Amino acid sequence: MSRSELEFIQNIKSKFSLTKVGDDCAILPKHDKTDLLMTADMLVENIDFRLDWTTPEFLGHKALAVSLSDIAAMGGKAVWSMLSIGVPENLWKTDFVDRLYDGWFALAREFSVELVGGDVSRTPDKVVIDSIVGGEVDKGRAILRSTAKPGDAIFLTGTLGGAAGGLKLLESGARNTDGLLLKQLQPEPQLINSNLLQKLGIANSMIDISDGLSSDLRHVCEASGVGSLLTAERLPIHADLPAHFPADECFDMTLNGGEDFELLFTVSKKNISHLDLPQFTRIGEVTSNVGIIELSIDGYTRVLQPKGYQHF
Amino acid sequence: MSRSELEFIQNIKSKFSLTKVGDDCAILPKHDKTDLLMTADMLVENIDFRLDWTTPEFLGHKALAVSLSDIAAMGGKAVWSMLSIGVPENLWKTDFVDRLYDGWFALAREFSVELVGGDVSRTPDKVVIDSIVGGEVDKGRAILRSTAKPGDAIFLTGTLGGAAGGLKLLESGARNTDGLLLKQLQPEPQLINSNLLQKLGIANSMIDISDGLSSDLRHVCEASGVGSLLTAERLPIHADLPAHFPADECFDMTLNGGEDFELLFTVSKKNISHLDLPQFTRIGEVTSNVGIIELSIDGYTRVLQPKGYQHF
Repeated sequence: MSRSELEFIQNIKSKFSLTKVGDDCAILPKHDKTDLLMTADMLVENIDFRLDWTTPEFLGHKALAVSLSDIAAMGGKAVWSMLSIGVPENLWKTDFVDRLYDGWFALAREFSVELVGGDVSRTPDKVVIDSIVGGEVDKGRAILRSTAKPGDAIFLTGTLGGAAGGLKLLESGARNTDGLLLKQLQPEPQLINSNLLQKLGIANSMIDISDGLSSDLRHVCEASGVGSLLTAERLPIHADLPAHFPADECFDMTLNGGEDFELLFTVSKKNISHLDLPQFTRIGEVTSNVGIIELSIDGYTRVLQPKGYQHF
Repeated sequence: MSRSELEFIQNIKSKFSLTKVGDDCAILPKHDKTDLLMTADMLVENIDFRLDWTTPEFLGHKALAVSLSDIAAMGGKAVWSMLSIGVPENLWKTDFVDRLYDGWFALAREFSVELVGGDVSRTPDKVVIDSIVGGEVDKGRAILRSTAKPGDAIFLTGTLGGAAGGLKLLESGARNTDGLLLKQLQPEPQLINSNLLQKLGIANSMIDISDGLSSDLRHVCEASGVGSLLTAERLPIHADLPAHFPADECFDMTLNGGEDFELLFTVSKKNISHLDLPQFTRIGEVTSNVGIIELSIDGYTRVLQPKGYQHF
């Protein structure tokens, strides 16, 4: 038996009739004006990070950042967090955990997130972190991945490929804090852009780029029952990539690289004039070709296979 | 440098001015009639469980049970949950995760807990689970560990030592589903007793027995600024223990054994007549000897050192 994470989650959803599973956050009623957003993300040593590639502070930052990115992807505001960490005894005896919390709190302060609980556990030999964040959004205003509409323009915040490029540099031995490495080690959740989009009220659907553009766009298309057409020339490649990698690798990292934690969102064409801002790039459009992601390169269009990150 | 989990948490609390950390659950405002309760518990393979001692179903049950017990300890009702699991690839390819969810859902159904999210991750070689549960309680009615009063009678639900006895039998090779092993592998969270106590409205303070009576009572005393005096003859020893262990070991497991997930609570003496029910046992009283736990045996009183479970 072999199956992907996604197949597994789909199976659990239908087997146990789960209606709140499947977007970046669960949406729970809080009171008559506000919904609660909840997300959990597990980071495992030697799968999601390596201790010789990062610092405890970066790791604490990233653990919170990935969950804040989920809140951003729903158009919400992060409010509180719980942090569960498992560490082996040899690390417990060092300043590792203190430094991890220092990195965590530096980011938490930036977005006024309060630590309200969690767990500290011993592990046999590896570090594991589960980051849980609770957020809020005006009732009914969470921006889903399942509500993209054919004809929508597809937009992206920031640039792509930086985190994947940083990972490749780390793999080949780089240990500086160059822009690409920082993008991998200390990603910035897009809460400010999310908040702006929420105020504009024009995003029909949204997701964060955690697995990679091709995979995450596919999640939007499958959840929304739509397709999409990307324009290769419009994809915003991270400015530092070409200095380190050949053009085809740069393009592959932009299309398939994970962990940039930028936001992908779709907007009715009548509203795109609101998005004439430097941090937003229009990269394609939503089509009615259900489940098909197409890529136009130099006027030729081909169907794209998803190649982003999957644990299984 | 060496420090306990508790010292670490105290340090983080004061360093970052955390006011919601330190009880079984965090209490967060939901709306004007209800507070939200949040808890997270991490279970790590070969620290908190062993795969050759348990079944995936028991493990799924226990992961949820430990968090439900935290909700019970606050007098709340469990409402929803997120489950983060990390598994190595070889287990992913078996029915392990399906069976774990089966065990989880069987308990969730019993208490109408809805799965709303979580995470699935790959690990290098060990299973790790983070169980997150959200509950509710009428505003201001959460039962804290910090509000025991000198003169209160100390009560306990059920019996103690069963889970510790089960662990010892597992360690010595037992693999049946005898009562003691079940108490260790498939603990029952005390939500029904908690609900009864909440309705009676008489518990001044409450905690669940996760680390062991001597440790958990110490948590109550330290948080409340009180002491306590236990009466050895009154401690409710699990009925199956004496058949397997000598008397001194039975007593040690009752006093210091963890993971029974019974509730310890304190009640003003004027209210104890309400508790004349078979599931409740009066085991001692709260004193004004701040931080001192005393044990009376055969009329002699000695000061007790905490010996319950600590990860570090």
